[in-house]
Amino acid sequence: MFTVGIDIGGTNTAAGIVENSENITHRLSVKTDHDYHTFLKNTGALITNLLSDADLSRGDITLVGTGCPGICNQRTGLVEYSNNLGWKNVPLEKDLADVLGLPVYVDNDANAAAFGEFTAGVAKGLNTVVVLTLGTGVGSGIIIDKKLYYGENFGGGELGHMVIEQGGLLCSCGRKGCFEKYASATGLGIITRNVMEKYPDSAMHTIAESQGKVNARTAFIAKRQGDKAGTEAVDIFVKYLACGITNVINIFQPDAVCIGGGVSGEGEYLLEPLRKVVNSEAYSRDSDFEVKLYACKLGNEAGIIGAANSAYCRVNHTP
Amino acid sequence: MFTVGIDIGGTNTAAGIVENSENITHRLSVKTDHDYHTFLKNTGALITNLLSDADLSRGDITLVGTGCPGICNQRTGLVEYSNNLGWKNVPLEKDLADVLGLPVYVDNDANAAAFGEFTAGVAKGLNTVVVLTLGTGVGSGIIIDKKLYYGENFGGGELGHMVIEQGGLLCSCGRKGCFEKYASATGLGIITRNVMEKYPDSAMHTIAESQGKVNARTAFIAKRQGDKAGTEAVDIFVKYLACGITNVINIFQPDAVCIGGGVSGEGEYLLEPLRKVVNSEAYSRDSDFEVKLYACKLGNEAGIIGAANSAYCRVNHTP
Repeated sequence: MFTVGIDIGGTNTAAGIVENSENITHRLSVKTDHDYHTFLKNTGALITNLLSDADLSRGDITLVGTGCPGICNQRTGLVEYSNNLGWKNVPLEKDLADVLGLPVYVDNDANAAAFGEFTAGVAKGLNTVVVLTLGTGVGSGIIIDKKLYYGENFGGGELGHMVIEQGGLLCSCGRKGCFEKYASATGLGIITRNVMEKYPDSAMHTIAESQGKVNARTAFIAKRQGDKAGTEAVDIFVKYLACGITNVINIFQPDAVCIGGGVSGEGEYLLEPLRKVVNSEAYSRDSDFEVKLYACKLGNEAGIIGAANSAYCRVNHTP
Repeated sequence: MFTVGIDIGGTNTAAGIVENSENITHRLSVKTDHDYHTFLKNTGALITNLLSDADLSRGDITLVGTGCPGICNQRTGLVEYSNNLGWKNVPLEKDLADVLGLPVYVDNDANAAAFGEFTAGVAKGLNTVVVLTLGTGVGSGIIIDKKLYYGENFGGGELGHMVIEQGGLLCSCGRKGCFEKYASATGLGIITRNVMEKYPDSAMHTIAESQGKVNARTAFIAKRQGDKAGTEAVDIFVKYLACGITNVINIFQPDAVCIGGGVSGEGEYLLEPLRKVVNSEAYSRDSDFEVKLYACKLGNEAGIIGAANSAYCRVNHTP
């Protein structure tokens, strides 16, 4: 069985042929034009090229799932609001179906990525899972009883905009102290720069120079080299990330919290200190039940696979 | 149709005959003995007296639902852990059924209270609802698609233990800065006392004296009298409560957030300034969708009605 997943990003739009809800056989991408009609035209060409690469015809494709930033209303097929793309109330499901000649289903991009990890990645086979993607912000998807949680307006699950430090750093959403201001890759960069200022002799200065700039890896590399300031920066980041994750556990008590985004590549260097804080603070710490912390494993493929699988499950009413 | 709801509290245990899942016809209560076997014996007598008062026999009662503080495992019927009562892994469902000669079902007390408001109170007919009860702590129950949310270990939904001020006041759960440290009735009392110290001329001093002590009403009464310090105390309380509620909205985007506990008796004096903050901060503020803020209306009856209705829905698989 073949489906198509389209992961619409602010910069690039990637599409892939998904085989048996599990793996991508062919993949192509194109710059995302924020002009809606140009976007539709470009995406039409993208899918035509993708099918040609895969030597498949439209008749071989069951459906197309899209992951799009913003509020995607599955009752109406509209993208109601996408801050990233500057779209408001565009009928993406209908318009893209007309262009592609295939049935199209919309979903939010963070939800799609979470559903990818749930159906084909690290969270496969579990029941209730929260996926946090640490990037420019903190994207999140919540799966409850094998189904994505949307809230009543398809705008739910914005864990990145949960305030954990009342009156803290100003977030793009207008609130102060949102989780994503501290626990995103961007947040880690800010924490790293602040600590570097305090320690002019830290190895992080040399590391950042060789990297071209401070990024989310700078502090972790320094910590591995035994740099005290690097360790301090990582510790601050872990403190905030663990705070938000412990909130998530106290609220959802899921089977697992899965962490994606570039930082998750640190693997146990990130997960081990995180578990230490979470296991000493979560409300369930005295029971036999333990929420697992995992690093995501599908990377950029999660969005494509998840968009296709979310659409497939929606049509077939199967989790 | 008659069911029985039992609301087990740290101090008192109240039981009621619930008619048609809607109203309590008879109600009795007894001191809660924390010794488990004495509790069972006392509750047996309580229900015998209740049935006698109502002129009903056991054959008239469909089932008994209990709301108990702590983690109540519905798969095993055990109260796995109740900090308030000092119980660990007690088979309440089985033991109480033996004593009462009726089928018994366990649920958490905050969940039961939330389900009461959902099935017979202010949230009746809605789909997704979060109920926050502001008392000694902040109790919470989450209803998603007409069903209570439990998490994978029946310990989920602890919104009171979501940190909103990282590194803030120490909570009984061991974390620092939990929502309930600021937004509970206890939290309001602490805020009030702090503001009173700053303003020796505030009307709150006279009000507290006439009340016997500072309580959750002191600041609201003073605010109504035009007292500046009272207004300041209420504003601080509202700021924290709104912060937690906005988090809840960004995560769940429910139909409504319902506020219970004594403070909710302030009605629009509380809800109006809350809405102002929430409507200017929630992630969905630019869309047409608005999460409603309501005051709960069943008071102490919510726990009894909800315990009975939760059990009834569980047995009959109806929301």
